[in-house]
Amino acid sequence: MPDTLSSFIDVAPDSDFPIQNLPFGVFSRPGSSRPHIGVAIGDFVFDCSVAEDLNLFTDESLRSSRPFSDTALNTFMSLGKDSWRSVRARLTDLLNADNPELRDNAEVRSRVLFKRSDARMQLPARVGDYTDFYSSIQHATNVGTMFRGKENALMENWLYLPVGYHGRSSSIVVSGTPVTRPCGQLKAEDKPPVKAPSKLLDIELEMGFFVGPGNNLGDPIDIANAADHIFGMVLVNDWSARDIQKWEYVPLGPFLGKNFATTVSPWVVMMDALEPFRTKNQEQVPEPLPYLQGADKRLYDINLSVTISTRGGGVRDTIIESNARHLYWNVCQQLAHHTVNGCNVRPGDLMASGTISGPEEKSFGSLLERTWRGTKPLQLSNGDERKFLQDGDSIEMSGYCQGDGYRVGFGVAEGTIVPAEIRDRR
Amino acid sequence: MPDTLSSFIDVAPDSDFPIQNLPFGVFSRPGSSRPHIGVAIGDFVFDCSVAEDLNLFTDESLRSSRPFSDTALNTFMSLGKDSWRSVRARLTDLLNADNPELRDNAEVRSRVLFKRSDARMQLPARVGDYTDFYSSIQHATNVGTMFRGKENALMENWLYLPVGYHGRSSSIVVSGTPVTRPCGQLKAEDKPPVKAPSKLLDIELEMGFFVGPGNNLGDPIDIANAADHIFGMVLVNDWSARDIQKWEYVPLGPFLGKNFATTVSPWVVMMDALEPFRTKNQEQVPEPLPYLQGADKRLYDINLSVTISTRGGGVRDTIIESNARHLYWNVCQQLAHHTVNGCNVRPGDLMASGTISGPEEKSFGSLLERTWRGTKPLQLSNGDERKFLQDGDSIEMSGYCQGDGYRVGFGVAEGTIVPAEIRDRR
Repeated sequence: MPDTLSSFIDVAPDSDFPIQNLPFGVFSRPGSSRPHIGVAIGDFVFDCSVAEDLNLFTDESLRSSRPFSDTALNTFMSLGKDSWRSVRARLTDLLNADNPELRDNAEVRSRVLFKRSDARMQLPARVGDYTDFYSSIQHATNVGTMFRGKENALMENWLYLPVGYHGRSSSIVVSGTPVTRPCGQLKAEDKPPVKAPSKLLDIELEMGFFVGPGNNLGDPIDIANAADHIFGMVLVNDWSARDIQKWEYVPLGPFLGKNFATTVSPWVVMMDALEPFRTKNQEQVPEPLPYLQGADKRLYDINLSVTISTRGGGVRDTIIESNARHLYWNVCQQLAHHTVNGCNVRPGDLMASGTISGPEEKSFGSLLERTWRGTKPLQLSNGDERKFLQDGDSIEMSGYCQGDGYRVGFGVAEGTIVPAEIRDRR
Repeated sequence: MPDTLSSFIDVAPDSDFPIQNLPFGVFSRPGSSRPHIGVAIGDFVFDCSVAEDLNLFTDESLRSSRPFSDTALNTFMSLGKDSWRSVRARLTDLLNADNPELRDNAEVRSRVLFKRSDARMQLPARVGDYTDFYSSIQHATNVGTMFRGKENALMENWLYLPVGYHGRSSSIVVSGTPVTRPCGQLKAEDKPPVKAPSKLLDIELEMGFFVGPGNNLGDPIDIANAADHIFGMVLVNDWSARDIQKWEYVPLGPFLGKNFATTVSPWVVMMDALEPFRTKNQEQVPEPLPYLQGADKRLYDINLSVTISTRGGGVRDTIIESNARHLYWNVCQQLAHHTVNGCNVRPGDLMASGTISGPEEKSFGSLLERTWRGTKPLQLSNGDERKFLQDGDSIEMSGYCQGDGYRVGFGVAEGTIVPAEIRDRR
């Protein structure tokens, strides 16, 4: 049976943003610099900041916290699941085709609804800390095979814990922000390193989640409660300069090969919108330790794709098709592990999955894997080929869950490579 | 010739906080929860937030930015060197023994000066990103020798770039905050891992600097300008659970073995106060790449020591004596390297040196090195011995520069180990 919930706002069947989704984002409206918070619905945005001023939210608890007067989603994220559900229920009601309250009130409608194309999107949250996991077994196996051979592909710890590391929060940017090709130390065999623009600029197709209320230092989040601390998800492109990374990363991990930019999609899809698309976890052998057990069906069936457009605009080819259900370690396991030592996480923290690669070549989530270290270049439809990114290349990641007659989508995470030379002239 | 600058406030010759120092900190005063900003002078604090309200700062540019109405030092850090110098000059003048302005005004004095023992110290800044370097060659050699043998002690990249990684900013705590022994996965040879409290809890003696104005994404900070972006320094204890770290850290670096707590001293000593204690850089062979050259005399002669006090209070032994001049990579090289790829740094970001170890055993900056992986336990004065930290152990790091007749000191970074069991009962 198709989902019959519908809005009085027309939404195309292949829109990412039907009433079943209602993702949250931060934007400025034309003629204003103050960031507002709202939800996407079809080609429109419902402005929650204005709605709050108009007292459209009926939940008493929101009247004091006023989460939509914040300039980012952090306050709303901090309120927790009950508040998230209450707001989501109210928005679903207000936008419902059967409810005349907003539908038939042209004056209020003109204040809270505006065209999405007029919204200048910003980062959804002030990200205190950004953690990047490494949770796809196919990705870890691919990379391990390339660098250590098939027999030693997975490190011994990989099957026992969700390996992760701290990334840089200052350089997280919203979709549409140009990415300058980074300079750094490049090392050719048997020569000293030189400083030069990266020649092996790559993408990593990831999903990330934003942390909700979080925990106090010293108090781990039990895996049974982990889902209550997850606000929602976005697409993440963890841009990677493979040559810089390769030379610098021992023994303390990736640093300048990653921290020049991380792109996220602007609309945060709430976990309740993803609920119908939960799917069974991957079988885990050996059995994880008890603190990593008990989060059933915490993978999500999210179709992911990556397109490349080259300078001049002649090409727009889909180069990767993957799915978030290919992950080995799920979001609840990641959060339980991250806090098992008492580490505190805070509202707005971002945790990314690591590159999501499936079993087929086309589903490998990075150029490193898709071209097998550049040995099998991708053939583009205009006859060009790509091992790694060239200046002017634009990468667009997108994702959606397919419901019956509707999609719950993520919009896009886009970034275009700007030559390093531009920076040197400054 | 002794420095004859003196304050009308009595300052003992071995005080960390004479008028030559004037370090900045954030605190709350008795009966108030609002954080104030001030400087330490002898056993007193001069309250800059109150002084700002009283218009005691004469610099016009400060009248609009009002840096001391912020609840942390971030605004002041963002203003840059001219403002820092202007404030420092004004404070030196106000507190000078020869200046009657404050000295002879009991009413104003009673509002801006109060006993340091009454200040409840807080973190000096909201730390956006925390980076930890690995800049002591003796430390890297010691650790490398233990884990890979003498021949392969230093990784090939170590002499070419200041190796660093991203740490966790949420778990940075101010001196005096108890540190809960972390739980995590421990792996004995030939057995599967178990979850248990860390048995190899360690310290790392480090110094850290706070970033000033910072740069925009894509615009590297040239090493010639790096010093203008460094606000001041603190002591850092990068607590480390060696057993958790050893199992988890390949291939992406330390994570839960570090992010349960990082302790900093509360008073930030400005670079201008450290100016008389600049000392020559270490000789660097091979010669660094040009972007890492040109920061002359950017090491600092700071005497560092670590004491341990055991539960019950019977022992207070100095177990480490080192010096910040033992670092191989200096602060300007660290900052130039960090931004060479365009990575942006922001006011309040913290960058730590990595463990500072000198050539002598007593100067090794961690228990791992001091006890050579536990093979040579430290003998304490009460007959106890220590390989790693036990519950109830209190670690106090301190540091000072010795001037002629005065010290520029850092106060202390203290933390006491709380048993993991306490957490489990919550």
